[in-house]
Amino acid sequence: MSDVVGELRILPVRGIGEIVPGSDLAEIISHACSADPGTTLVDGDVLVVTQKIVSKAEDRIEAIDFDDPKLHKTIVERESTRIVRRRGDLIISETSHGWICANAGVDLSNIEAGYAALLPVDSDRSARRIRDALRHRFGVDVAVIVSDTFGRPWRRGLTDVAIGCAGIRPIADLRGSNDSLGRELQVTEVCIVDELAAAADLVCGKAANIPVAICRGVDASWLGEGSAQRELVRHPSEDLFR
Amino acid sequence: MSDVVGELRILPVRGIGEIVPGSDLAEIISHACSADPGTTLVDGDVLVVTQKIVSKAEDRIEAIDFDDPKLHKTIVERESTRIVRRRGDLIISETSHGWICANAGVDLSNIEAGYAALLPVDSDRSARRIRDALRHRFGVDVAVIVSDTFGRPWRRGLTDVAIGCAGIRPIADLRGSNDSLGRELQVTEVCIVDELAAAADLVCGKAANIPVAICRGVDASWLGEGSAQRELVRHPSEDLFR
Repeated sequence: MSDVVGELRILPVRGIGEIVPGSDLAEIISHACSADPGTTLVDGDVLVVTQKIVSKAEDRIEAIDFDDPKLHKTIVERESTRIVRRRGDLIISETSHGWICANAGVDLSNIEAGYAALLPVDSDRSARRIRDALRHRFGVDVAVIVSDTFGRPWRRGLTDVAIGCAGIRPIADLRGSNDSLGRELQVTEVCIVDELAAAADLVCGKAANIPVAICRGVDASWLGEGSAQRELVRHPSEDLFR
Repeated sequence: MSDVVGELRILPVRGIGEIVPGSDLAEIISHACSADPGTTLVDGDVLVVTQKIVSKAEDRIEAIDFDDPKLHKTIVERESTRIVRRRGDLIISETSHGWICANAGVDLSNIEAGYAALLPVDSDRSARRIRDALRHRFGVDVAVIVSDTFGRPWRRGLTDVAIGCAGIRPIADLRGSNDSLGRELQVTEVCIVDELAAAADLVCGKAANIPVAICRGVDASWLGEGSAQRELVRHPSEDLFR
């Protein structure tokens, strides 16, 4: 296999077992990565960690009675700061973080029957904790993205997006750089953390129990401090679809 | 470098020169891919081709007077079937294909001054033509996605999405498969062509003149016939945000 200059590699991390409240994610991820020489973490890697295992480790799990669908609705409404749309059982709402998504991000899949997973209280902080622990205890400098699966208006199908990050700037601002013909580019703010979350989802697969992927070969200029919650939520004054 | 099972590789294709009306994209892409042994196309690759070079090759280029901003607006309105939102110079509208996006997809960047690029008339057909030519003339069976850069409500930053495809099903329907705990998954229709377009954008870069990327290692079960235009546009009756 030949190396290609500028190649991006999306590597599934295997062997991450069941996560429970209190699980040490940095320890578990580091251990799983090291089990295969191909996935041993190196400086500059971007780890994408799915929300589900973060919520489990942080005990954002709540008992739910599947025979009482109203209870699920009650949790969704409690986790919402604003209901945006409602149709039948589906609620599109805004969360305390500012995300607009289905059911306030409350999820029933990949959770033991009888439990629902809520979004982490602060996914940027969750990402930063994993990043800091990997740096201080395992000596590797990686960025971390916490991803979740969202729908979107107008387009069918779900894609993974970033709800938290650490060690990477969420948006690469290409405004003012020149395009290939030397003309100044118009506004081109690329949401690289959403694109990385989407790429990671392609190897994670919902049913394969691979909740973590490594993105290797990410442009080093994108690394740095950043917050998904502060930088990705579009300000109401700029938003035509509130 | 060790191979990792299940790895996805995103390979930038270098050496694609300026595209002009009538350019033979399959020939140019095949030639550029073959220049590096690492990017020589193999069966099962998914090629992501940015809309800009497709529009140029198909002569969807229109003269525009930069001193007359009204002309741009006139083209946008002509390319729209419905104006969804308007604020200042920004128009969010629906195109004849059903896409809802800024300025009906009419683009002024990476185009010579004085010209605007319109969306291809039928991006699925554009993708199919490239796929068929690569298969018949160059003997390689690859899927093709035509990508474009769209904004989205509520989230800052742009991401690349699919506006056309051939040889790949746009949505992987995971409904009914079991999650890692054996419970039946709820609705999980993953829009894999959008996730692949996003992944490709991470290596294409707006200013680097890399309009094509190869996604290698895509799940073979996702390959097959499909149409982005027919399968990704959410039906009005299902859409809470029309």
